[in-house]
Amino acid sequence: MIDRLTAAIREKENPTVAGLDPTLEMIPEFLRTRYFSEFGKTAEAVRKMFTEFNRHIIDALADIVPAVKPQIAMYEKFGVEGLKAYNDTCEYARMKGLIVIGDIKRGDISSTAAAYAAHLGGAEADGRRLETWKEDAVTLNPYMGSDGIRPFLEICRREDKGIFLLVKTSNPSSSELQDLMLADGRHVYEAAGALVEEWGREVPGSGKYSRAGAVVGATHREIGEKLRKQMPHTFFLVPGYGAQGGTAEDIAGFFDSEGGGAIVNSSRGITAAYQKDSAFGEKDYAEAARQAALKMKEDLRRCHV
Amino acid sequence: MIDRLTAAIREKENPTVAGLDPTLEMIPEFLRTRYFSEFGKTAEAVRKMFTEFNRHIIDALADIVPAVKPQIAMYEKFGVEGLKAYNDTCEYARMKGLIVIGDIKRGDISSTAAAYAAHLGGAEADGRRLETWKEDAVTLNPYMGSDGIRPFLEICRREDKGIFLLVKTSNPSSSELQDLMLADGRHVYEAAGALVEEWGREVPGSGKYSRAGAVVGATHREIGEKLRKQMPHTFFLVPGYGAQGGTAEDIAGFFDSEGGGAIVNSSRGITAAYQKDSAFGEKDYAEAARQAALKMKEDLRRCHV
Repeated sequence: MIDRLTAAIREKENPTVAGLDPTLEMIPEFLRTRYFSEFGKTAEAVRKMFTEFNRHIIDALADIVPAVKPQIAMYEKFGVEGLKAYNDTCEYARMKGLIVIGDIKRGDISSTAAAYAAHLGGAEADGRRLETWKEDAVTLNPYMGSDGIRPFLEICRREDKGIFLLVKTSNPSSSELQDLMLADGRHVYEAAGALVEEWGREVPGSGKYSRAGAVVGATHREIGEKLRKQMPHTFFLVPGYGAQGGTAEDIAGFFDSEGGGAIVNSSRGITAAYQKDSAFGEKDYAEAARQAALKMKEDLRRCHV
Repeated sequence: MIDRLTAAIREKENPTVAGLDPTLEMIPEFLRTRYFSEFGKTAEAVRKMFTEFNRHIIDALADIVPAVKPQIAMYEKFGVEGLKAYNDTCEYARMKGLIVIGDIKRGDISSTAAAYAAHLGGAEADGRRLETWKEDAVTLNPYMGSDGIRPFLEICRREDKGIFLLVKTSNPSSSELQDLMLADGRHVYEAAGALVEEWGREVPGSGKYSRAGAVVGATHREIGEKLRKQMPHTFFLVPGYGAQGGTAEDIAGFFDSEGGGAIVNSSRGITAAYQKDSAFGEKDYAEAARQAALKMKEDLRRCHV
C-alpha cells in the first residue's frame, strides 16, 4: 500500500487525500428532493444520495488525487444502510484507481482487534473468503497498545495493506491526553509516535516508509516538525488543513527533505466547495470539487516541492 | 441509564454483564450446518446463525443478568450483514428488559463524534428521526479528549443514555501507553480517569454515579482499587474476568463500600460454556450459558456483598 501510495502521489504530483464525509447538509437540494420523495424519509434514501454524490465526486477527482478517505462515522450514523453507501464508495473509488484510506479509528484487543482487521483482510465463512469491507488502509487508535495493532500488522504484511495510527490529532482537546508531559521528558504523543515507529519495523515498505503510518494534525506546526524528525520511517496522514485552520506553511515541515512522507486531507473544502463558491450552482457540485482540488494541489506546491 | 443499571443489578442481585461476542467457532455445529447449507457460505448465513444463537442465549439469561454487552467488532467482521445481527441482538435484548451496552470503542472529534453519537441518539432524515442503532450505552476511547466526548454527553443528558470510557484496559499491552508515568507523578490512566470524573459531572445520575462510566480491567487489581478511590462518581465496566484471568478476589476492590459501583463482564465464559462442560451437548448451549451465569453470580458474591 505505502509503495503504491507514494508512487501515486508522485505520478499525480499531488499529496492530497480527499475526505469523503457526506452529510445531508452537503447533499445538493435536487438530490435530496429526488431521493426523499422516491424512498421516503428513510436511511435507504440517504444511502442512495450519498452513493450518487460520492460517485460523481470520485469521477471528478480520479485523475487529480491519489487517494480518498471516507470517514465511516458519517455513514455509520445511518445504520446498515449508511454502511452500504460506505462500502459502495470504497469499492467505486478502488475501481477508479484510487487508494482508499478508511477513516475508522478502531481500536481493541487481541481477538477483537483481529475481527476489526476484516476491514483489510476479509472474513471467512466455512473456508470461503468474504471481502466484507473494501479499504486499502485504515486509521486506528493506539491507546490499547500493541495487542490491538498486531493483527493488523500481520495483514499489512500478508496483503500489502496499510494502517495509520492516531498520534497527535488536529482537534483542540487533543491536548488533554496527548500533550501530557511524561516523567522521561517526552509528551504522550511522542511515546505513541515511538510505538508507531517500532511497529513500522515489522511492516517495511520497499522505500523509506513503512506500512504503519501516523495521523498528525496540520493544526500543530511545531509538533509535526518535531515528529517528522523523530519518526523517519513513518508516513503522515495529515488532517486539519483548510476548514480546521491548517495552512500549507504550517505543514511544510511535515514533509521530508525530498517533499515526500505526508499526505494532506481535505474533506468539506473539496466536496462541499459548490456551497462556498457562487460561481457554481448546486448541479455543478462535482466540477466545483474538481476545481477546489486543483486549487489545493497548487496551494500544496508551496510546501512539498 | 445508570439509575436503571444500578436498580437492575440490585433487583437481580447480580453485577454481571454478559458479553455477546459470537464467533463461528462458538456457534454449535448443528446451527452452522443448517444455515450454511440453506444460505451458502455467505455473510447472510452468518447473520442468521448469530441472530438465532444470541436470541436463545438472551432468553436463557434474561432473568439472571441485568445487562448484555455485544462486542460490535465480532459482527462488523461480517460487514453489513453482520451488523444487522448486531442490531437485532441489541433490539431483542432490550425487548427482554435487558440493558444493552454496545462495546463499540469509538472515538473521533466534533462533527464526526456527533455522527457516531447516532448509536445513542439516532439520526435525522429530513426532520424524521431514524433509530439506526439500538444501544442504551456504548464504550468510547478518550485519546482525542473532550471534543469527542461532548456530543455523547449531550445525548446522555437528553435521553438518559450512558457511556463508558476506556481508562485502564485488561490486556497486557495496555501498559505501553496507559501505564506511562507523567511528570506530575500520575500515570496516563489516572489522567484519563480524572477526565472521566470531570465529564461525569456534566451528566449526573440521581444517585452516587454519573452516566459517564469507565472501563477498568479485572486483570489489574491494585490499579482498580486505586481508581475506585480516585473516581468516586464513576461506575466501572470491568472486562477481563474469567478467560483473561481476573478473579472475584481481584475485583473486590473495584466495588464501593456498599458493594455497588461496578459491573463485571464475561463473554466466552458464559456463551461458549457448552464447549467446556461435557455435561452439555451442543443443543444445550443456552442452558449451559444459564448455568455458567448462575455460577458466576455465586462467584461474584464473594466480592461485592
